[in-house]
Amino acid sequence: MARYALGLDFGTNSVRALVVNVAGGDEIATAVAGYPSGKDGVVIDKKDPNLARQVPADWRAGLAKCVGAALEKAKGKKGFKPKRIIGIGVDTTGSTPLPVDEKCQPLADQARFKKNPNAYAWLWKDHTSFAEAADITALAAKEHPEYLAKCGGTYSSEWFWSKALHCIRVDPDVMEAAASWVEMADYIPGFLVGCDAPADLKRSVCAAGHKAMYHASWRLPAADMLDKLDPALGRLRREETFEQALPSDQVAGQLCPTWAKRLGLEPGIPVAVGAFDAHMGAVGAGIAPGTLVKIIGTSTCDMMVHPNTQPLKDVPGVCGIVDGSIIPGCFGLEAGQSAVGDIFNWFVQQFAGGKAAAHKKLTKEAAKLEPGESGLLALDWNNGNRTVLVDVRLTGLLLGQTLHTTPAEVYRALIEATAFGARVIIERVEEYGLKVNDVINCGGIAEKNPLLMQIYADVTGRPMKISRSAQTCALGAAMFGAVVAGKDAGGYDKIEDAQAAMAGLKPTVYQPDPDAQKTYDRMYKLYRQLHDAFGTRLWQGNMHNVMKEMLVIRDEARGG
Amino acid sequence: MARYALGLDFGTNSVRALVVNVAGGDEIATAVAGYPSGKDGVVIDKKDPNLARQVPADWRAGLAKCVGAALEKAKGKKGFKPKRIIGIGVDTTGSTPLPVDEKCQPLADQARFKKNPNAYAWLWKDHTSFAEAADITALAAKEHPEYLAKCGGTYSSEWFWSKALHCIRVDPDVMEAAASWVEMADYIPGFLVGCDAPADLKRSVCAAGHKAMYHASWRLPAADMLDKLDPALGRLRREETFEQALPSDQVAGQLCPTWAKRLGLEPGIPVAVGAFDAHMGAVGAGIAPGTLVKIIGTSTCDMMVHPNTQPLKDVPGVCGIVDGSIIPGCFGLEAGQSAVGDIFNWFVQQFAGGKAAAHKKLTKEAAKLEPGESGLLALDWNNGNRTVLVDVRLTGLLLGQTLHTTPAEVYRALIEATAFGARVIIERVEEYGLKVNDVINCGGIAEKNPLLMQIYADVTGRPMKISRSAQTCALGAAMFGAVVAGKDAGGYDKIEDAQAAMAGLKPTVYQPDPDAQKTYDRMYKLYRQLHDAFGTRLWQGNMHNVMKEMLVIRDEARGG
Repeated sequence: MARYALGLDFGTNSVRALVVNVAGGDEIATAVAGYPSGKDGVVIDKKDPNLARQVPADWRAGLAKCVGAALEKAKGKKGFKPKRIIGIGVDTTGSTPLPVDEKCQPLADQARFKKNPNAYAWLWKDHTSFAEAADITALAAKEHPEYLAKCGGTYSSEWFWSKALHCIRVDPDVMEAAASWVEMADYIPGFLVGCDAPADLKRSVCAAGHKAMYHASWRLPAADMLDKLDPALGRLRREETFEQALPSDQVAGQLCPTWAKRLGLEPGIPVAVGAFDAHMGAVGAGIAPGTLVKIIGTSTCDMMVHPNTQPLKDVPGVCGIVDGSIIPGCFGLEAGQSAVGDIFNWFVQQFAGGKAAAHKKLTKEAAKLEPGESGLLALDWNNGNRTVLVDVRLTGLLLGQTLHTTPAEVYRALIEATAFGARVIIERVEEYGLKVNDVINCGGIAEKNPLLMQIYADVTGRPMKISRSAQTCALGAAMFGAVVAGKDAGGYDKIEDAQAAMAGLKPTVYQPDPDAQKTYDRMYKLYRQLHDAFGTRLWQGNMHNVMKEMLVIRDEARGG
Repeated sequence: MARYALGLDFGTNSVRALVVNVAGGDEIATAVAGYPSGKDGVVIDKKDPNLARQVPADWRAGLAKCVGAALEKAKGKKGFKPKRIIGIGVDTTGSTPLPVDEKCQPLADQARFKKNPNAYAWLWKDHTSFAEAADITALAAKEHPEYLAKCGGTYSSEWFWSKALHCIRVDPDVMEAAASWVEMADYIPGFLVGCDAPADLKRSVCAAGHKAMYHASWRLPAADMLDKLDPALGRLRREETFEQALPSDQVAGQLCPTWAKRLGLEPGIPVAVGAFDAHMGAVGAGIAPGTLVKIIGTSTCDMMVHPNTQPLKDVPGVCGIVDGSIIPGCFGLEAGQSAVGDIFNWFVQQFAGGKAAAHKKLTKEAAKLEPGESGLLALDWNNGNRTVLVDVRLTGLLLGQTLHTTPAEVYRALIEATAFGARVIIERVEEYGLKVNDVINCGGIAEKNPLLMQIYADVTGRPMKISRSAQTCALGAAMFGAVVAGKDAGGYDKIEDAQAAMAGLKPTVYQPDPDAQKTYDRMYKLYRQLHDAFGTRLWQGNMHNVMKEMLVIRDEARGG
């Protein structure tokens, strides 16, 4: 008798439900629901481009909608019945913390906070807290450098404590009203299992470890350090009484009757501890030691694992190294690029007519160009640089424009820039002893854009493989659902077993082209020159050669 | 009885005829005709963005058409009759040399060269000859540094000898067939007066002095130096037997019967020696010592004059210092920006929908932005940098893009970049002892874009005045027509007298706003940093501060 797991993937703009056959990974039904508020589900502020919030009620409404739709579709498939769903896994964006009351209900649900974005969830890409991130980094560097060593040496404005501290500073009423701040990755499983107090929430080691400076040996950062930033932040820390944050092979609880009814499922189904989308996506793509999984979407996450029985140096600029955050028994490493698909979307929206078809048209034209032909070179920092500079106060740069420069040329230069950024990350982790033997890509862009994949192969000099599943995040979540169900219930005892049964690759592999690789090696040197000149204080020379060399490359590419 | 002068202005994309009342400068009729070949009259090569050529037959066809149309309009005005036209002046783009045969006919007219762009006119903005320019500069620096001192220290790829040498190298058949190479500014008056041998052409001191290293004391550069570049270049020099190049208050000849008939004018009307559009435009705008005239079009020309009785240092990076090239008795100084309107047009064409209305829309939106608000900073080098870097091998740069950057923000940043470039020029000439007491702007953009004029005032910290005439080039040409006619015929004896009678300013003056000026002073420092870092070898520091400081400025501008 077939058994199924349900993966729930809460992305930036929508939530997806995926019903997977536990035996072979067959994805029998899926559905997506958007979030009604803001622009594509994100509440923004025209006056402050750093602000990005979400309304928690949107998540709940979207969840009910997409699970209902997925089950409807699944019911058409032979062998499926809702009661054959044996486990549920959940992944979410993060760090996306939200203030909750003593019942673990979002403050945003309260009438008095309904119109106050500070009481909403602070979406991962909210950058309002850059000053607080700098304060936290400076203080931790002095008092607890060990906290920073596990998160790339710099605490980010995207992360938990920065956001809470910014809220304290700009909107103390919200902080006053909050019984706790919780990560979305904990909040979602929490309400599914009927948790009604923050203290009872099972906390994800993925969220706590990567974003809140949690470590098994010291737990959350010291309250007396946080006091120095603001006593309210120290208080928030003191109220976090959980003993241990957990990996996702652990059970958060059982599906509560209220949500079972709302979703059309049996109550009591085990729900796994949550984790971030990228981490579960890496699992769904088949991550293992030596394999880099790149999840390419609006931003990129670069995931690796390393057995926790072997030594591992801290890698400067790599956002997080957390034991069990991806695979239990391995350190999970998270790097990433703050904007990838977002850059292409921005360009098309603003500078190429804004229609979805423009992506296709530009890609087609850009594919006709030789590497270097446009003479353009870009820095992919429109949303700052996450890895390896860990600096949101950086911006995009485009260089090499003439009076003949076309949108397709710029589009290609932007793709190339993200590829150069990807190469910087690979070189950094290898420099610190993590061998990258394999690169598996997943996410919509990896699937749909052969040009981008070929450029990534050419720029990095490595074959680019593609995950078989188009929904690796939801699939990874479903795998953890199968693991918390356990072997006896028709699931698995270990996530590696679930991966072996449920993950796979597509037949197409993008191989690097040696000529393109040569040109990109030269361009990458110039990219690094700009990268280091604009992004670090290391660079002492002038930059006079950059444009000259780009023009030589361009002319050669054109056969001159 | 009213007397009229006819000004003929050959621009990059079209030719204009202007009929002016000599007494008060009243412009009674004007007409424009395009050139039929290529893209907007410019023959380009998709494979080589440096190439820009023109078909000489287009000029003749356009001339007949626009003069005919202007005369038709003028005939409707009281007091006008074609025979009351007492003189003709001609200005053209330059350096725009073309190969001609022994009859002074363009090689491009011959059937065998009809499809060979190397036999066409090499338009000023043709940059194919950058390698030759470097060779000429290197050799002249060694053997005749005095040649370079008068043209900013670097011989340009846009200029006469570079283009001829490039033709020798890439297409020796064309050079073999050429009896001479002549500037468009000499060729046009030449055919109007029926000149049928290159040796009989009156040569413009403006063209020869600014573009061909001509100087009264040594005439054209030494043939034995040119021999070292190529014997064919030495031969070309030896065949140039003219004794003296002339300012435009001198007569090139009388309108020949053939062209009189074709244009519908009386034969025998005196035609002035030609000059470049910018030089005559400066005259039409009312140039005098202490007044900078900016002619803002696709590119910008910055013109000054300095009495030749007073000492004047050579100004590094200022393209030319030539006695009599603008006003007889004064040194004429020419500086400029290789692309201004061209940059805005490129941006609108490629990135903002391409419609003419887009300029208006973007200008309207850009006008709502505060200085610095976008966080963007650009280098205006999409067509290289003419002054003060004299380097065509530079390209555009845009810095500060986020995921929220809009076309209007980029449009404004591009305007600001050209304003910063304009300020570099003013600072350079003042540094070398030429006081800029007044700035008079002319050209379509100066007239039609108050935003651009305000930004120029704010960036330079100087009031921006606008020439009364919308057609200062053609008006300046007409003034020289009035001068070659002479006082006895109803014209003038000196160009200053013609200016006094025929030039004027508009009532609107753009005054610098002190707040905007302060912000722009800060941005200008960063512009200079990029300018010097990317454009020179002077800069030793890193550039880490650039984006940071731009973001601080942006946030402050937004009131943060």
